[in-house]
Amino acid sequence: MKVSNAVLKDTFGFTDGILPAACPSRTVLDHVTSKWGVLIIVALSTSEMRWSELREVVQGISEKMLAQTLRTLEQDGFVLRVAQGTIPPRVDYSLTPLGIELSEKLLPLMDWIAVNATGILSRD
Amino acid sequence: MKVSNAVLKDTFGFTDGILPAACPSRTVLDHVTSKWGVLIIVALSTSEMRWSELREVVQGISEKMLAQTLRTLEQDGFVLRVAQGTIPPRVDYSLTPLGIELSEKLLPLMDWIAVNATGILSRD
Repeated sequence: MKVSNAVLKDTFGFTDGILPAACPSRTVLDHVTSKWGVLIIVALSTSEMRWSELREVVQGISEKMLAQTLRTLEQDGFVLRVAQGTIPPRVDYSLTPLGIELSEKLLPLMDWIAVNATGILSRD
Repeated sequence: MKVSNAVLKDTFGFTDGILPAACPSRTVLDHVTSKWGVLIIVALSTSEMRWSELREVVQGISEKMLAQTLRTLEQDGFVLRVAQGTIPPRVDYSLTPLGIELSEKLLPLMDWIAVNATGILSRD
């Protein structure tokens, strides 16, 4: 599959063969392909999770990065944050319909990486 | 599409619901979703390019980051570097068959982002 010129030009901002630094796609790309953004979306594609579950599943993420990444994903409309009115407070995170759409584009990439990663790194 | 438990467990290293920090997929994911890695692969999916062309097309990339990202992508086997024995020297970069396979997984994601980016950012 080749990316179409129409998409490059009209929607991706690839005008005259340039990927402009300021186009909206670059910003969203940064969000969804941030080191942690992808892993959180993959984790939530398996099920809704609480903060502490995400912290455990996405190994190596700090409290600060988890908070920051979730806030960005929530602002972009990929993640839904639902605070239960319980004591102690309980907050559930899940993918929105937009987040599910995104995960459907991400998962084939992740699957491909999973299958090929060991072979790729053994080349180095 | 839900990511299968088999893939999570057997190939992605998602054992017992954990995304281990040390699994090979994490490293390859870092490489191909680095800020510049994706843009270089998308650029090369349109055609083979010379250094100076890449520098122009992938707006905002520094010489240092271009060199570093190309080296990583070359080591991973995604990008082929061919130095022509001309004076002045000319170096062409293109996707390998593995790089083309990767780009086929990346482009649907990029297309989706391109179509949705403006709407996503206008939510902020």
